[in-house]
Amino acid sequence: MSVDLLARPRALEDLAAKILVAAGANADEATAVARYLVMSDLVGHGSHGVLRVKQYVEQIQKGEIVCRVEPVVVSEGQGFAVLEGGLGFGQIGAEHATRLACAKAKTQAIALVALRNIAHVGRLGDWVELAAEQGCVSFHFVNTLSMPRVAPWGGREGRLSTNPLAWGMPVAGGAPIIVDLTTSVVAEGKVRLNRDAGKPVPEGWIVDREGKSTTDAKALYDGGSLLPLGGLEAGHKGYALSLMVDLMAGAISGGGASGADRKINCNNFTVIAIDPTLLAADDWIVTEAARFSAWLKSATPAKADKSVLMPGDVERNTRARQQREGLLLSAGAIKTLTDAAALAGAPVKLVEDFISATPPN
Amino acid sequence: MSVDLLARPRALEDLAAKILVAAGANADEATAVARYLVMSDLVGHGSHGVLRVKQYVEQIQKGEIVCRVEPVVVSEGQGFAVLEGGLGFGQIGAEHATRLACAKAKTQAIALVALRNIAHVGRLGDWVELAAEQGCVSFHFVNTLSMPRVAPWGGREGRLSTNPLAWGMPVAGGAPIIVDLTTSVVAEGKVRLNRDAGKPVPEGWIVDREGKSTTDAKALYDGGSLLPLGGLEAGHKGYALSLMVDLMAGAISGGGASGADRKINCNNFTVIAIDPTLLAADDWIVTEAARFSAWLKSATPAKADKSVLMPGDVERNTRARQQREGLLLSAGAIKTLTDAAALAGAPVKLVEDFISATPPN
Repeated sequence: MSVDLLARPRALEDLAAKILVAAGANADEATAVARYLVMSDLVGHGSHGVLRVKQYVEQIQKGEIVCRVEPVVVSEGQGFAVLEGGLGFGQIGAEHATRLACAKAKTQAIALVALRNIAHVGRLGDWVELAAEQGCVSFHFVNTLSMPRVAPWGGREGRLSTNPLAWGMPVAGGAPIIVDLTTSVVAEGKVRLNRDAGKPVPEGWIVDREGKSTTDAKALYDGGSLLPLGGLEAGHKGYALSLMVDLMAGAISGGGASGADRKINCNNFTVIAIDPTLLAADDWIVTEAARFSAWLKSATPAKADKSVLMPGDVERNTRARQQREGLLLSAGAIKTLTDAAALAGAPVKLVEDFISATPPN
Repeated sequence: MSVDLLARPRALEDLAAKILVAAGANADEATAVARYLVMSDLVGHGSHGVLRVKQYVEQIQKGEIVCRVEPVVVSEGQGFAVLEGGLGFGQIGAEHATRLACAKAKTQAIALVALRNIAHVGRLGDWVELAAEQGCVSFHFVNTLSMPRVAPWGGREGRLSTNPLAWGMPVAGGAPIIVDLTTSVVAEGKVRLNRDAGKPVPEGWIVDREGKSTTDAKALYDGGSLLPLGGLEAGHKGYALSLMVDLMAGAISGGGASGADRKINCNNFTVIAIDPTLLAADDWIVTEAARFSAWLKSATPAKADKSVLMPGDVERNTRARQQREGLLLSAGAIKTLTDAAALAGAPVKLVEDFISATPPN
């Protein structure tokens, strides 16, 4: 089977969950992880979608993901908690940490929960959205302790990961604002796509092993590095944001910031949640967010056929369309699911049944 | 007198304070404001230095700065406070808010203080440094309710100010990390400098009134707009950061985010302070920051005669040099001090005495 399919999201969740269960996950965690993976596919971020199932199965088999563990409290107070993740599924841990931070914010106005040593937390936007559902403004910081491809400003060797930052807030009468960005100019995957297609990358994405600007995508994989957000002109700003994220996630949680000896491919995750209803009466803050959003959207578009959007709008629109029309699943993603099932020892029939019940695009 | 001088910082503080007292400030607030202005000059950020004294005198006379007021508590809990600034001096309010946030963090681990309706808060790095002196990690968000020159991503009209963000943390055995950046590619003043010198600006700084990329600095002042951090390639990220800062400062404080009807030239200021000693024992977190800083600095420099720096290093080095050798004060800055003294009704002799006691550069 090598055509793209239009999957029903629930059927895809079931398939992914069954593969994870075959690999050793319990039903609850497999269901939750599968739901978040499919959510990433739905919003158009396939890099964090079911494509990851095979990687997760491999990580379970190598002991880099430990099934059936819950985060353990290391230290806790009314307004904070530090948790040890024990290499559990990142989505399970991140959901737990986000809910805990929001619950604490309900009485404290602001709370911090830091969770160390967990597997891939998935798409950060999901945790912003979850916090917004609880009525909270939230920040989310993640670092990854492997493969630093981003050079510090003024340096020519990778020292940092793409260290993402997310933030968001509820908006009265509308969808929440959801900011979710890497502090590098682009994700490494975009350079890889250009390299594989034999195409150059725009000036300002990468430097070569000598630290010189280049448009040759291959240079990144020959000792080069990704530039921080801001690129050649203002990369000192992205560098500063990247190290902020690395320390907020790695140092605050106790899991560690980037470094030479950080070989385990795991995440550290810190959430700050704020309950705006304790700071101002009558939903003033989320109402102000609605007024401000309208002010931004009132700017004349740079291109007549486009409009000014708020962060999170593109993903929400993509999700609504795919929920209506079906989730576009590439032949490549289906291949990795088949491989994942085989690796996990799940019946091959699982994937065959899914495919035969799913219309081609 | 139209030559540059090498001022003694204390003498310059005295001069600035006396002018502010003549304009109506009490001695304590004038001394504090003058000290922070001179600190900005010392670290090399003259745009936030004594050049501002004349503007402050004008604002006092127009009622945009109100002397002799203290921030008033609007709402408060163990881990938070919202304060009304009453258009008091920004530096006084920002110092108060930062100290209060750190004091609350000492018992709560994390605390938020939001201060609305204050005058220009000065250089954000000062508040990061103050928090680090109290042992705290801190975030600082500021918005300015006038002259939105930054276009939203995909739009061609200014809707946002340069909305700065600051963050920092103490480092065991070393100087704190101090991040202080605008969420636009550059500050507006840099475009103004190029325009005045008849020079183009680099591609990716500004767009013209049609929303098209241009290197003509004049275009900004003819209906154009500054690009958010990330420029033409990744400006959606800077846009997201800018609106985050605007809402964290303006909505959370109750002072308001940017908008069409926001004509008063004042700031809103939100601080989040975190006491790392409540999260981990034995100074682990600030020790990890020291290890991580060394890891970043170990990257081979891109240029052989430069080294990789941490955010805050340049300012600290400039301050040490100017404290040793004298503070370079431009003839233009001296002229504005003379004008400010005249405007405030201070004796002209004040400035003459300062000049005659100060060696030319």
